[in-house]
Amino acid sequence: MTPTITAFAQSPDRGRGLARDMRVRWALEEVGQPYQVRLVSFTEMKEPAHRRLHPFGQIPTYEEGDLALFESGAIVFHIAQRHAGLLPDDASARARAIAWMFAALNTVEPPIVERGMATLLEQDKPWYQERLPMLEDRVRVRLDELSSRLGDADWLDGAFSAGDLLMVTVLRRLGASRSLEKYSNLSAYVARGEARRAYKRAFADQLAVFTGKSPTD
Amino acid sequence: MTPTITAFAQSPDRGRGLARDMRVRWALEEVGQPYQVRLVSFTEMKEPAHRRLHPFGQIPTYEEGDLALFESGAIVFHIAQRHAGLLPDDASARARAIAWMFAALNTVEPPIVERGMATLLEQDKPWYQERLPMLEDRVRVRLDELSSRLGDADWLDGAFSAGDLLMVTVLRRLGASRSLEKYSNLSAYVARGEARRAYKRAFADQLAVFTGKSPTD
Repeated sequence: MTPTITAFAQSPDRGRGLARDMRVRWALEEVGQPYQVRLVSFTEMKEPAHRRLHPFGQIPTYEEGDLALFESGAIVFHIAQRHAGLLPDDASARARAIAWMFAALNTVEPPIVERGMATLLEQDKPWYQERLPMLEDRVRVRLDELSSRLGDADWLDGAFSAGDLLMVTVLRRLGASRSLEKYSNLSAYVARGEARRAYKRAFADQLAVFTGKSPTD
Repeated sequence: MTPTITAFAQSPDRGRGLARDMRVRWALEEVGQPYQVRLVSFTEMKEPAHRRLHPFGQIPTYEEGDLALFESGAIVFHIAQRHAGLLPDDASARARAIAWMFAALNTVEPPIVERGMATLLEQDKPWYQERLPMLEDRVRVRLDELSSRLGDADWLDGAFSAGDLLMVTVLRRLGASRSLEKYSNLSAYVARGEARRAYKRAFADQLAVFTGKSPTD
C-alpha cells in the first residue's frame, strides 16, 4: 500500500528542504518506497481534520491504510523498521543507531531551533544582540561535541543509518548561519548526506512543490 | 546481565526526580529489571571516560555487557524493546506509542526546557519579564493541544506505554511554574503516572541519592 505524507503547500524555507517532510521523503527514497504527498496550507494544518492526524497541527504526517503517524522522528523510525537499509541488523548496533536518532532530535536540534527562532521572531528586539552570543554558544557546545565524536569517520556509528539521516537534516538547519564552517568534518558529513542519490531525489521533489515544476522538467 | 545506568552524584533538582535518569529508572521498574547505578559528578561527566559513553557529556547512560547507550529516549526504547509492558504488541499501536515518545521529547519538551532555562539563567536580565509571556505562550500552545488530544482518556493511546512514561516526566518539569493547574486532565494524567508502583519505586531510589538514606530506611 502506498503511504501518503503531508507537506507544506507553501514552505516557509522557499524550497531549501529544511521542513520536516524532507526527513521522511529522504527515508522513503533510501528504502525505495514510493509515496504520495498531500499538501496542506497553514490554515488547514490547524483545523480539526488535520489535528486528528497530528495533535500538534504540524507536518509531516504519514498514513498507510489504517495507520496514521505523526512526528518526523517516529515516521522515519517506522520506515526504518519496515524496510532494510536504515538500521543495522545487529541488535546492539541498531540500538546505538536509534540513540543517534534521539540525540539528533532531543540534544542537537533544540539549541539550533532556539537560535533560529530568536532570529526569526526577536531580531528587532533590543535584547537580541546581547542574547545572541549565549544562543550561539549553546549551539557551538553541541557542534564541538558532535565533531569530536565523528572524528574522521564517514558516519556516526558504522554504516549510514536513520541516525545520520536525522542528524544531517538537523545540521542543515544551521544553513545561513555559517556555524558549520568552522567544523570541516561536520561540513563534509552534511555534504556526504546531501550527495546520496536518495537525498537528491527527495530534495528535488520538495523543491518542485515550491517552484511548481516537476523535478523531471 | 544487570545493566548499569549513570545519574548525577549531586542532582540539581534536590531529589525532585526531574533529572533524566528518572525516566530510565521508571522504565526499568515497570518491566521489573534490576539495575545498578553509578553516580557521576559534574566534573566527571565532561571527562573523556564518560564522554566515551555519552558524546554530549550528560546523564543517563546505560551499559549492559558490550552495549553502551546514551539519550534517555533511546534507553527507554531499548528497555521497551527488550521487555514486555511498555509498548503494545500490535504493530500499528506500537508505532503510535513510539510517535508519542518522539512527541514528548521533540515537540513538548523543548519549549518547557527553554522556559526553564530562561528562569535559571536570565532571571536577572532586563529583558526577562518582557520575554516571559512569549515563552509561556509557547508552552501553553503545546499544553492546549496535548490536553485536547488526551480528553478524558487515562493515557495518550490505549494502555500505558513508554510514550506516556516520557510525556509524564516531561510535564513534571513544569512543576513549580504551576502551568499545569489550568489543565485538570493533564494534572490528573501526571498524578496517574506518579501513582504507579514502578514510578514510586524509581522516585524513592533517586531521592535516596539526594538524602543519602536508603529508600527502605
